[in-house]
Amino acid sequence: MKIALVLFDGVTFLDFAGFYDVIYRLGQFPAGRGLEWEVCGTKEQVTDEMGLTVCIGRVKPDLSRYDLVFVPGGMGTRKLRCNDDFISWLRGAETVRYIVSVCTGSLLLGAAGFLAGHSATTHPSAYELLEPYCNEVVQTRIVHDRNVITGGGVSTSIDMGLYMIRLLAGEEALQTVKRQIDYPYEIQGVYVNR
Amino acid sequence: MKIALVLFDGVTFLDFAGFYDVIYRLGQFPAGRGLEWEVCGTKEQVTDEMGLTVCIGRVKPDLSRYDLVFVPGGMGTRKLRCNDDFISWLRGAETVRYIVSVCTGSLLLGAAGFLAGHSATTHPSAYELLEPYCNEVVQTRIVHDRNVITGGGVSTSIDMGLYMIRLLAGEEALQTVKRQIDYPYEIQGVYVNR
Repeated sequence: MKIALVLFDGVTFLDFAGFYDVIYRLGQFPAGRGLEWEVCGTKEQVTDEMGLTVCIGRVKPDLSRYDLVFVPGGMGTRKLRCNDDFISWLRGAETVRYIVSVCTGSLLLGAAGFLAGHSATTHPSAYELLEPYCNEVVQTRIVHDRNVITGGGVSTSIDMGLYMIRLLAGEEALQTVKRQIDYPYEIQGVYVNR
Repeated sequence: MKIALVLFDGVTFLDFAGFYDVIYRLGQFPAGRGLEWEVCGTKEQVTDEMGLTVCIGRVKPDLSRYDLVFVPGGMGTRKLRCNDDFISWLRGAETVRYIVSVCTGSLLLGAAGFLAGHSATTHPSAYELLEPYCNEVVQTRIVHDRNVITGGGVSTSIDMGLYMIRLLAGEEALQTVKRQIDYPYEIQGVYVNR
């Protein structure tokens, strides 16, 4: 299993970090044997919406070579969805087994055409922005429609990581990771159309 | 209000990112007018425990000049608490109004002597490591003992940010930030000794 975690200028850092700090833990379970992940972007460094700069591990890799591509959100998505260079790179993920977003990352999935005919969600403040890209906006925290799994705002990032752990490695693995990250809450608001 | 967010090699990224992505929102309320924050460390770049590299905004500033110093945890804390250079730098925060940690960041506060005579908490897997540094380990998520506020493991980082928002800006501000980060959960397990 090979995971690409996409970063870009103007990302909301927690959109990324919640999923990042949960999903790598998949590697400790049989279902995640040989897990690899890479932080990917279109340039060597990116700066989040508050000014924090992070180094990118892989610049513009072929995204079709991953099993899961994760796209966080942030104010940067508003401009980025109109950036041909970024969107055509992201389109490489089209055939990937799991395309996952949190918050307004779904606007980028939409701009890449991944949400055509799909149900999806985003940050509650961006439901209207998402509408033109998808079949139906479901106003809930996690929407799993075939190969595309979209999440709600910012903090949903942790729940999305946990949802993927449960999906890929089962309930016992979920409980183990919840203990490791000291998370007492239950995943809420999951809508599934498989 | 001036906030220092401390980073170091081997940090757990979510320990940092949860607090970071909540506390800057204090700036939108009257109580946070003029809010400034800086990402601080002892060198130009640090790498988290999974290999992600982040640029440090301020290298070795005088920590006594901040109103709040935040210290996350991670496997790197085990070695760092014995690093004289880092710990003597951290000691500069001794007189700061709020010294805040999440997860095993409390081991670093302990090594700096900030927990002497204080109640404190940490990641549940590190209660024993914390004991020698403090008066009493309280096995809960947030322990607020005078100027020192320590938190439980990893995901507690978001709750700690929200706790500080409520403390500094009130209940209405808390509800506003919870909506902004799409957080449906209630802060649990707070122990206060003022």
